[in-house]
Amino acid sequence: MTSKPSADFLLVGASELVTCAGNAPAVGAEQSRVAVIENGAIAARDGMIVWVGKEKNIDAEVDVAAEATRLDVGFRAVLPGLVDTHTHMVWAGDRGDEFDRRLEGATYSEILAAGGGILRTVDATRQATFEALLSAAGARLERMSRWGTTSVEVKSGYGLEPASEYKMLETVLELGKRHPQELVPTFLGAHTLPREARGSQRARERYVDLVCEEMIPTVAKRHLARFVDVFIDEHAFGLAEARRVLESGRRAGLGLKIHADQLSSDGGAELAGELGAVSADHLEHLSPEGMSALAQSGTVAVMLPGATLFLRSHAYANGRALIEAGVPVAVATDVNPGSCPSESMPLMMQLACLYCGLSVDEAIVAGTANAAAASGLEDRCGSLEPGKRCDLLVLDAPERRQLIYKLGSPQIHMVVARGLVLS
Amino acid sequence: MTSKPSADFLLVGASELVTCAGNAPAVGAEQSRVAVIENGAIAARDGMIVWVGKEKNIDAEVDVAAEATRLDVGFRAVLPGLVDTHTHMVWAGDRGDEFDRRLEGATYSEILAAGGGILRTVDATRQATFEALLSAAGARLERMSRWGTTSVEVKSGYGLEPASEYKMLETVLELGKRHPQELVPTFLGAHTLPREARGSQRARERYVDLVCEEMIPTVAKRHLARFVDVFIDEHAFGLAEARRVLESGRRAGLGLKIHADQLSSDGGAELAGELGAVSADHLEHLSPEGMSALAQSGTVAVMLPGATLFLRSHAYANGRALIEAGVPVAVATDVNPGSCPSESMPLMMQLACLYCGLSVDEAIVAGTANAAAASGLEDRCGSLEPGKRCDLLVLDAPERRQLIYKLGSPQIHMVVARGLVLS
Repeated sequence: MTSKPSADFLLVGASELVTCAGNAPAVGAEQSRVAVIENGAIAARDGMIVWVGKEKNIDAEVDVAAEATRLDVGFRAVLPGLVDTHTHMVWAGDRGDEFDRRLEGATYSEILAAGGGILRTVDATRQATFEALLSAAGARLERMSRWGTTSVEVKSGYGLEPASEYKMLETVLELGKRHPQELVPTFLGAHTLPREARGSQRARERYVDLVCEEMIPTVAKRHLARFVDVFIDEHAFGLAEARRVLESGRRAGLGLKIHADQLSSDGGAELAGELGAVSADHLEHLSPEGMSALAQSGTVAVMLPGATLFLRSHAYANGRALIEAGVPVAVATDVNPGSCPSESMPLMMQLACLYCGLSVDEAIVAGTANAAAASGLEDRCGSLEPGKRCDLLVLDAPERRQLIYKLGSPQIHMVVARGLVLS
Repeated sequence: MTSKPSADFLLVGASELVTCAGNAPAVGAEQSRVAVIENGAIAARDGMIVWVGKEKNIDAEVDVAAEATRLDVGFRAVLPGLVDTHTHMVWAGDRGDEFDRRLEGATYSEILAAGGGILRTVDATRQATFEALLSAAGARLERMSRWGTTSVEVKSGYGLEPASEYKMLETVLELGKRHPQELVPTFLGAHTLPREARGSQRARERYVDLVCEEMIPTVAKRHLARFVDVFIDEHAFGLAEARRVLESGRRAGLGLKIHADQLSSDGGAELAGELGAVSADHLEHLSPEGMSALAQSGTVAVMLPGATLFLRSHAYANGRALIEAGVPVAVATDVNPGSCPSESMPLMMQLACLYCGLSVDEAIVAGTANAAAASGLEDRCGSLEPGKRCDLLVLDAPERRQLIYKLGSPQIHMVVARGLVLS
């Protein structure tokens, strides 16, 4: 006699239950493997999925507790909760006024010269209390969830000094304790140079020393982050500096991520491939060599098309070429106050289809299973399978396609994280 | 002794009460006239605004009934409800599958040859019952309202035969009776040629005759529409045909609107100017002569940037040049199943800023006061002033800018139409 799994949560009425089941990240033709169950149902216990199948098989296969939460979603499509694998959602202050100036034609350099840009966010974030950061980020998390996001990777990088960087990462950890959503902290002390390190080459070197020799070991020792990330860019760090940061992270036991090839082909993807980074992000100007390096290492390419749209740079990552080259592709919001304030994962998946060459199903995998893999969460979320978190979104439509087709106005009916109905 | 207006609805707590008060449409420098009252309040009676002012003056200036609805919006920005002045939101059937094919690289001609495209919507709409159309359009109206839209102009044009065209317009009129939102029907029998008129030049001429000699007089006589519209395009109608349609409409007492210059400079704007059309819509390929004609006639230019984004045509209407030439500018969604399924006015206002050259305040006027003028509603809505409908949206932020800055994820806290809280 086989014992049936017991459940305290049951969802029925899914016209299409899009499970995205299978090994993540999905590569090549597998990128469109959404694995749909028609007339599907899900059972969970203590926030974890225990059973997924056809609704008609529930009685035979699941032991549903009398007091279980029962949701009938009325012939609507159900997808895994979206995984936003690249965000900078912990920050203080507001830079909306810089948006006005940008619309008037001001360049980023002009905004920077007027006291704006990233260093303004750094000043505000350094000055903010832990509670203030927690409150601002918590409000963002709540709004992001309304758009279907149930897992978020969050980078530090607006502190740029030990105490403020740790404060940001502690904010992420505390957010994860207070909310049912899954949060992953990433240390990005090498986001840009702080003001005090911009005066001389020696000051610059001292800051990289501080990141590699003090902050990374402390972050690892105190379990403040799972990943180390670095921004390769002419206004941030060079390839040799990035290598040093990532190698320090690797020695400390952290996973590796890179902001690569955003404004030019900077060798970031090649470095990601060489060091076996879990993801390389941006890639708007990826070189053929970089593409090969990512395919060989199995690194996930994380596209951030919202930044392209918001910055009007017109260069989108070529998702079609990446998939055809055998690189697993994910998509994320990049939520941040300067280059992409959008909190909507559906918009990013829509842009991935319209401007990065993905199909609807490829974009769904890019926002779920492959995004989970890009944040090391493939064993926890990104698909609807027994053993994963019960994170899902219910569309107000019977077909999954409507999440993408309804440009800028996705019809999200309900969002569930760890078995709890969020909205 | 002056009598104070009495009110059954009172809204307080507006950090910025964006009234957009003044003559509409706003032209040139006036396009950014948002007329903000800080710490503002609104009083209404029977769904119409009776007073707008500083919160501190309420007691002295308004007689608020004891049983009045009182809303404290908690230091949030309040704007006029958005006016979507160009939609095709009444249709039956679904064409989401064509989106999949388009992403795979199919051209519009290929989709048309496979039985897709606009004629598929015409078939479904002809076959649909009045109740089915009402239900589909009602669901769309409800979703559009969640994005802040409280007034909608709706075009016919998926019937392309008398009974089906009238059925569409009756749907709009019935929607307006059943919902507190304001709806304006526009007759667009000249949207495209129906299948039965595509065989020969004679059949084509007979269809234009049918539009001009039968449908327009009937629509006017039965008060089924306020405007007549025509689509000038190589796949639709030529300039001479458009002139005939519009002149027939004018003779019948209807206001005039034109779909002009979407895919090439087709002389549509010049015709709009010459005939004194209330609006010319699209204008992605507006000529300098067309721009002058619009400026001279005071015709409102309605930009539809969602179609450009969705069709990946890269050509956006040049809102900056239009404003500087003295043409009043509005922005709308174009909601339809083929070229723009988006129901979000905020996304359109965001694109108007990022890609059409408008400032935040110009975009707000484009989505409110000038949009109202483009639908002949300037006496009824589009601004928060005594005598106008109490239609408004409350942002979940203290500054109006956040409606635009938060690309694809506008924070709408509450929407009110005719004094009723919708969401």
